[in-house]
Amino acid sequence: MVSAGKGLKILITNDDGVKSKGISALTEMMKPFGDVTVVAPFEAQSGMSAALTIGKPLRLTELKREKGVKIFACSGTPADCVKMAVNQLFNDGLPDLLVSGINHGSNASIASLYSGTLGAAAEGTVYGIPSIGFSLNSHDPNADLSVVSHFGKIIIEEFLKNPVKPETYLNINFPATTIDKVKGIKFCHQGRGQWIKEFEARTDPYGFKYYWMTGEFFNLENNNNEADHNLVDQNYISIVPHKIDTTDYNELERLESLWNLT
Amino acid sequence: MVSAGKGLKILITNDDGVKSKGISALTEMMKPFGDVTVVAPFEAQSGMSAALTIGKPLRLTELKREKGVKIFACSGTPADCVKMAVNQLFNDGLPDLLVSGINHGSNASIASLYSGTLGAAAEGTVYGIPSIGFSLNSHDPNADLSVVSHFGKIIIEEFLKNPVKPETYLNINFPATTIDKVKGIKFCHQGRGQWIKEFEARTDPYGFKYYWMTGEFFNLENNNNEADHNLVDQNYISIVPHKIDTTDYNELERLESLWNLT
Repeated sequence: MVSAGKGLKILITNDDGVKSKGISALTEMMKPFGDVTVVAPFEAQSGMSAALTIGKPLRLTELKREKGVKIFACSGTPADCVKMAVNQLFNDGLPDLLVSGINHGSNASIASLYSGTLGAAAEGTVYGIPSIGFSLNSHDPNADLSVVSHFGKIIIEEFLKNPVKPETYLNINFPATTIDKVKGIKFCHQGRGQWIKEFEARTDPYGFKYYWMTGEFFNLENNNNEADHNLVDQNYISIVPHKIDTTDYNELERLESLWNLT
Repeated sequence: MVSAGKGLKILITNDDGVKSKGISALTEMMKPFGDVTVVAPFEAQSGMSAALTIGKPLRLTELKREKGVKIFACSGTPADCVKMAVNQLFNDGLPDLLVSGINHGSNASIASLYSGTLGAAAEGTVYGIPSIGFSLNSHDPNADLSVVSHFGKIIIEEFLKNPVKPETYLNINFPATTIDKVKGIKFCHQGRGQWIKEFEARTDPYGFKYYWMTGEFFNLENNNNEADHNLVDQNYISIVPHKIDTTDYNELERLESLWNLT
């Protein structure tokens, strides 16, 4: 388990790929807390959710090894990266902490369902590793990440004092602003929303249609200040605990009483 | 919304691909309930969770059109198939019902996290479509599906009388046995479990290592007869309602009271 001390074994991954600015910033942020092992996708794996690679083999390549930091690239998804790390690199014991990100783009609201950043955090949680996803509300690959680096350290300190319970992980989203403009850090729920108008249809040079995924976010909880995406839009840092047991226990009881299954 | 009448607009998808035996059996099972539109992946997409295809375009190909049944193949993931169907084929109104499967392989316990079958059901739920995933506890592509066809119809009838509430979908797993050996149908929770020993390492002809995902299921809830995977192993049909809002509200309150974020 995690503790407030230093010297932790830390696993870092992401979904934007091992060469992204976000994962470099996260590695720098985490170094003071212990030994860092990065295992991240060779290439961008955004929108991969908790997908696994089945039916084709994976590669694991060491890119760098220096005091306190080892960096590997994996040919698979973010969840594959976590599985590969745990099975191949942490044979002597699980990491004390998994941090995923810093994602270039918000993973608030329904984005949490599709997020590879959070798929990796969910996978860490399946193994019993305390896990956190960090995301910035900007898709700019060169975005200023100082808000995450600054407040992320404070959040990690709190996390080490009072970690999340087993089977739950944290999804933390940061506004794309400067440190002085952040209004606060708030625990909140996964906001309701969905994408609409999701495809742009085009015609290829041979006369056949093809479709690019695009889409607009549609806010289903416009005036709720407890919803993570609304808080981030107002320059708060949002923290949502997500469960890997997604059973709807109330609905289980309700349907059980209504359905005739004898 | 769904109702007990016939004449429904039904969307069918899966993750084993449009040519699998499972989706053909599901199409036959659903035909008596209304007009069926199948939109399923060209190729197997097992383990894809709720992944989306970002950064490369998608294709949608009509394969068949006859009275009451239209079949399309999509080049993307199961969740892509649902998005494509809703955006391109159901412009005049959402489907009344989404059914995903019949998956060749159990999606009980932690398999629900990785399942493309359930990723599609989650995606349907995001749109507000009442959604169900059906899976058989056998990976045999030629498995006998009569247990699902027989009890699936009974379950659909109950579902139409008392549908699941919005933002929740059903994950239904069937034992791989004969109709007479089924002990019953039970509402239950997502069982606890994980995979271990997940990779088989090999060396390629050039001397480099590569890894096949394999793994053994490790049961974390061995003696719990309310856990879905244990019930399926005992020849029950399991029904788990899963939420798309995966916020851990209890943990939210607990951490909020403990963390010092002022």
